[in-house]
Amino acid sequence: MNKKGLLIVISGPSGTGKGTVCKKLLQRNDFWISVSATTRAPRKGEVDGENYYFISKEEFIKRIDNEDFLEHAEVYGNYYGTPKSKVLEQIDNGKDVILEIDIQGALKVKENYHDGVFIFILPPSMEELKKRIINRGTETEESLMTRFKSAYKEINFVSKYNYAVVNDTVEEAVRKIECILIAEKCRVDRIKSTIFDSREGLIHEQFYD
Amino acid sequence: MNKKGLLIVISGPSGTGKGTVCKKLLQRNDFWISVSATTRAPRKGEVDGENYYFISKEEFIKRIDNEDFLEHAEVYGNYYGTPKSKVLEQIDNGKDVILEIDIQGALKVKENYHDGVFIFILPPSMEELKKRIINRGTETEESLMTRFKSAYKEINFVSKYNYAVVNDTVEEAVRKIECILIAEKCRVDRIKSTIFDSREGLIHEQFYD
Repeated sequence: MNKKGLLIVISGPSGTGKGTVCKKLLQRNDFWISVSATTRAPRKGEVDGENYYFISKEEFIKRIDNEDFLEHAEVYGNYYGTPKSKVLEQIDNGKDVILEIDIQGALKVKENYHDGVFIFILPPSMEELKKRIINRGTETEESLMTRFKSAYKEINFVSKYNYAVVNDTVEEAVRKIECILIAEKCRVDRIKSTIFDSREGLIHEQFYD
Repeated sequence: MNKKGLLIVISGPSGTGKGTVCKKLLQRNDFWISVSATTRAPRKGEVDGENYYFISKEEFIKRIDNEDFLEHAEVYGNYYGTPKSKVLEQIDNGKDVILEIDIQGALKVKENYHDGVFIFILPPSMEELKKRIINRGTETEESLMTRFKSAYKEINFVSKYNYAVVNDTVEEAVRKIECILIAEKCRVDRIKSTIFDSREGLIHEQFYD
């Protein structure tokens, strides 16, 4: 009944496998994935509008002033941001949009777009997360500790999200996210106006004074 | 992660096919269906504890005073009610409980159990509902009008529910309800405490000061 698409924001601490989950979600569904804008130079093989929208710093700052970002951040002197108009255009066309983003970015998106579906990917357990971080190898014991402590702290932000999905197996996590989207499209808060519009449109005069 | 079961309240106007939907849901899932208590005499073949809990009027009134009903009503001099303790016992044991109930009953349950999942079954269209009511036959044009007007008014109550599911095909409606339940079990509001409990339980001291 609902014609508008959903903005699906997927994030979580590093090591939870959210990238793999998003990849599989996109393989199995006709979603549109949000492409970020950046002021950094394109690397070899990167395509404008596919990997990023490559724009000048001047243009980026103009867009910040125009409030055309759902969120943006500066990293090592380069700007990165999620273009609001591109995302809203897809949503208005009834397309569901996936946004894979870090926790800080997700919380900024939430401020600017309350209607999003905010999904936090959790590791099966903290023990498992520890293993995954260790298995990436090459890290010193000290940096392991730092990464793990940071993941531990990040998990606190789950309380700001609508849903938490444990990435036990990718298949299971993807299936749960697909269910969440079906459920969201049945939520009365989301579709109330559509229900009443269609009722008005369909009812025959003779049946109601 | 969540050990508690869900209370799933399914209702909607007559003619929407909610009975068929519930039957199929029960066939495919390990749900517990709530059995009502009543003061009316058992009919031939009815089994106590299966069709109804048959109890005396005195006992019923005592239970009302003890607030042991999620909802109750008097119909033609007989009492009917949903026993709270039986339902909560199943939920505490991690079992999902289905309650198929009329709209008035559902709204009373909502007052007494906020954590329920309230699902409203909608007809595919008001035209289709009209057809279904007409196809039941035997009704005069006047009673048809009354039934249809009542269904029309009842649809307004959808705004008090969490979810609306269009019963276009039973298979599709059941699939959506199953998704709603999976999604509800991922809702952060519902499982927040479990996430933090399991994190505390699993984290190793050396990783967090």
